[in-house]
Amino acid sequence: MKNLKGALMFGQSGGPTSVINASAAGVFLEARKHPNITAVYGLAHGIKGLLEEDFYDMGKEDEKELLLMKNTPSSSLGSVRYKLANIDKDDTDYKRILEVFKKYNVRYFFYNGGNDSMDTCNKISKYLLSVGYDCNIIGVPKTIDNDLYGTDHCPGFGSAAKYIATTLMELNLDAKVYDKGQVAVIEIMGRNAGWLTAAASLAGYKGLGADLIYLPEVPFCVDKFKKDVKRVMDANKGKCIACVSEGVRNKDGKLIVEEFSDEKSKDHFGHTQLGGLAIHLADLINQEYGVKVRGIEFNLMQRCAAHLASAVDVEEAFNAGVEAVKAAVSGKSDMMVAFERDMSSGSYKCKYFLLPLEKVANTEQKVPLEWIINNGTALSQDFIDYALPLIQGDCKAPLEDGLPRFARLKKVQAGIKK
Amino acid sequence: MKNLKGALMFGQSGGPTSVINASAAGVFLEARKHPNITAVYGLAHGIKGLLEEDFYDMGKEDEKELLLMKNTPSSSLGSVRYKLANIDKDDTDYKRILEVFKKYNVRYFFYNGGNDSMDTCNKISKYLLSVGYDCNIIGVPKTIDNDLYGTDHCPGFGSAAKYIATTLMELNLDAKVYDKGQVAVIEIMGRNAGWLTAAASLAGYKGLGADLIYLPEVPFCVDKFKKDVKRVMDANKGKCIACVSEGVRNKDGKLIVEEFSDEKSKDHFGHTQLGGLAIHLADLINQEYGVKVRGIEFNLMQRCAAHLASAVDVEEAFNAGVEAVKAAVSGKSDMMVAFERDMSSGSYKCKYFLLPLEKVANTEQKVPLEWIINNGTALSQDFIDYALPLIQGDCKAPLEDGLPRFARLKKVQAGIKK
Repeated sequence: MKNLKGALMFGQSGGPTSVINASAAGVFLEARKHPNITAVYGLAHGIKGLLEEDFYDMGKEDEKELLLMKNTPSSSLGSVRYKLANIDKDDTDYKRILEVFKKYNVRYFFYNGGNDSMDTCNKISKYLLSVGYDCNIIGVPKTIDNDLYGTDHCPGFGSAAKYIATTLMELNLDAKVYDKGQVAVIEIMGRNAGWLTAAASLAGYKGLGADLIYLPEVPFCVDKFKKDVKRVMDANKGKCIACVSEGVRNKDGKLIVEEFSDEKSKDHFGHTQLGGLAIHLADLINQEYGVKVRGIEFNLMQRCAAHLASAVDVEEAFNAGVEAVKAAVSGKSDMMVAFERDMSSGSYKCKYFLLPLEKVANTEQKVPLEWIINNGTALSQDFIDYALPLIQGDCKAPLEDGLPRFARLKKVQAGIKK
Repeated sequence: MKNLKGALMFGQSGGPTSVINASAAGVFLEARKHPNITAVYGLAHGIKGLLEEDFYDMGKEDEKELLLMKNTPSSSLGSVRYKLANIDKDDTDYKRILEVFKKYNVRYFFYNGGNDSMDTCNKISKYLLSVGYDCNIIGVPKTIDNDLYGTDHCPGFGSAAKYIATTLMELNLDAKVYDKGQVAVIEIMGRNAGWLTAAASLAGYKGLGADLIYLPEVPFCVDKFKKDVKRVMDANKGKCIACVSEGVRNKDGKLIVEEFSDEKSKDHFGHTQLGGLAIHLADLINQEYGVKVRGIEFNLMQRCAAHLASAVDVEEAFNAGVEAVKAAVSGKSDMMVAFERDMSSGSYKCKYFLLPLEKVANTEQKVPLEWIINNGTALSQDFIDYALPLIQGDCKAPLEDGLPRFARLKKVQAGIKK
């Protein structure tokens, strides 16, 4: 544990969320308080900005704008999907990172992201340890997917879950408005873990949810899906709402959306990202039962609808950034900030602790199978109890002209990029 | 002009909106104040409930729940799409309506909807006049499409416009997050009038909008679209956001989404409703330029996202219901409540007046062509000035468990339906 004096670098990585900038705000505002931190840099596009010496002097930003970052969605610094090579095969990037760190006397490094980003963070940390360069490195968690290992939940999940539950309640009212049968299939993000799709059950808890919920944790059978929908239609005047994770797979592990792509227009779907599954499944129901259908994707909205962020999530994301700085300044390194649920007072409270980076890197946490009930179509009360505290309260940007006033950063270049 | 004593019937019709229930609340709460109104009935599924004697006694509802209707999306009574036959061809429905009105002594009738619904309202009004049955009939406007003739704007538009502008601002930040080219095509409702798609320009006014906006008022050429996108990509590091109305048509008046359906999988798209256009156009860009693409539909969310309703819209929708009752009670009939913009004080104010129903029925108001600029890809400041006052302020349901607490009506049956 070392008390270091030098610059701080912070980068955002992976898919953005509604509250990823809240963590950045936490890091920047806390970092500016510590005399040992001589400069605060924000990397443009994460690790890419580091390799290219493309970063901003966050010390030059107005505090007011940094506070507005708490309610500004997406990654204000720019994000990246970049996987560091295994050091045994190619150490070019690692040497370059060391070079940049030395050049700017970087002694604090924070990386904000999900599984892949924690892998990057872990690799850099282990490399710098191996070469004896003193730098305190802390991972800051972030992912709407909520699948990081060892933490009760992840910043970003609560707001996405709140978006999904709120929007589903509204859609439920809309989809039932006519005196005719109608089937709505709603596609929700989550490639391997079904936490987000499970959030649909929160709307059901309020009486306005989905009739069927399918998570990627359980093999998906198209024939069973058709029968499930039929059963609900028969009991509900031809109406049914089904929520399906984009990542559902058949029993052989093949993505269902790929099954459709094979049969029909392979060029049309799944070639750039997942998506399109809802339309395919809705179409199938239409062909089978001749009922009116609608395929709905929550698409990018579920990860950037900051106007519907959970106040709990915003606060925890901000605190994750603050805690990261406090830990690093107190000499901690090679760790990720994690959340623990404290119910000892009878109500929900979040406690922060540190997890070794290597434990988190590349490990996925899925929805417990015992929480998935009704033959793989619903969530138990365990999930409701788990998720409900995470979606409490509203916290959004102030209005200007009736629209959100998001942070406007100066982004003063502090590296070499023009 | 007659001062009548008897029951009031109110029905909701056509596609629901975020604030259609606010108008219902205005009608019910105002109606309960007037001694000449002996009963207040809410029709289940509009005209269908009238024909089937399926309606609720709104006098039995708690005032608190009626007030919550102001922030409850979709049609709480149920909606319908039912076109009355021309009376010269078939007067069955008309006779049945008269029969029901006589049975329950209905002397006040209000119908809430868009063009088609005003046509229905007009037909019933003219029939009752022709047979000499005294009943004061007032149309209450409603449509996110904003295409009703003779009124400055329509209840429902402001909230949908606010959803579109806010969501586009959030998506703009998300779509630019990586240091790579990406094209997002966003599909917005509006079969013939482009008001909603034009609302994308409000996000642009705040610096976070679309690069290209295509309205159905201007013929759409797929080749020009591809070139427009390329031009924007070239100037913006491969990035482009395009908003397209679902109702864009080629120069021969054929829907673009149908062009795609012909070429490819006709079974897949456009057979139940519009939609799917964004995916098709995004796919086309991907094939042409090999860039990463995303097709996004705002889908039903744009008409039911009550959590993002405009306070101005909620208030005006409520007032439209109140004004309808006041007009009818004072002896007016055969009219629709309409809005006039009063800028005499230097700031926006809405005034209410009455328009003859026959002037409104089946007439569409489109976006003025002179407001559509940049070779059919943008809106002028005229539109911003027009729309901005309509999206001001927030007004949403209170939270319960972190989720909206929508109205819960008792729906006490007052007709004959079990």
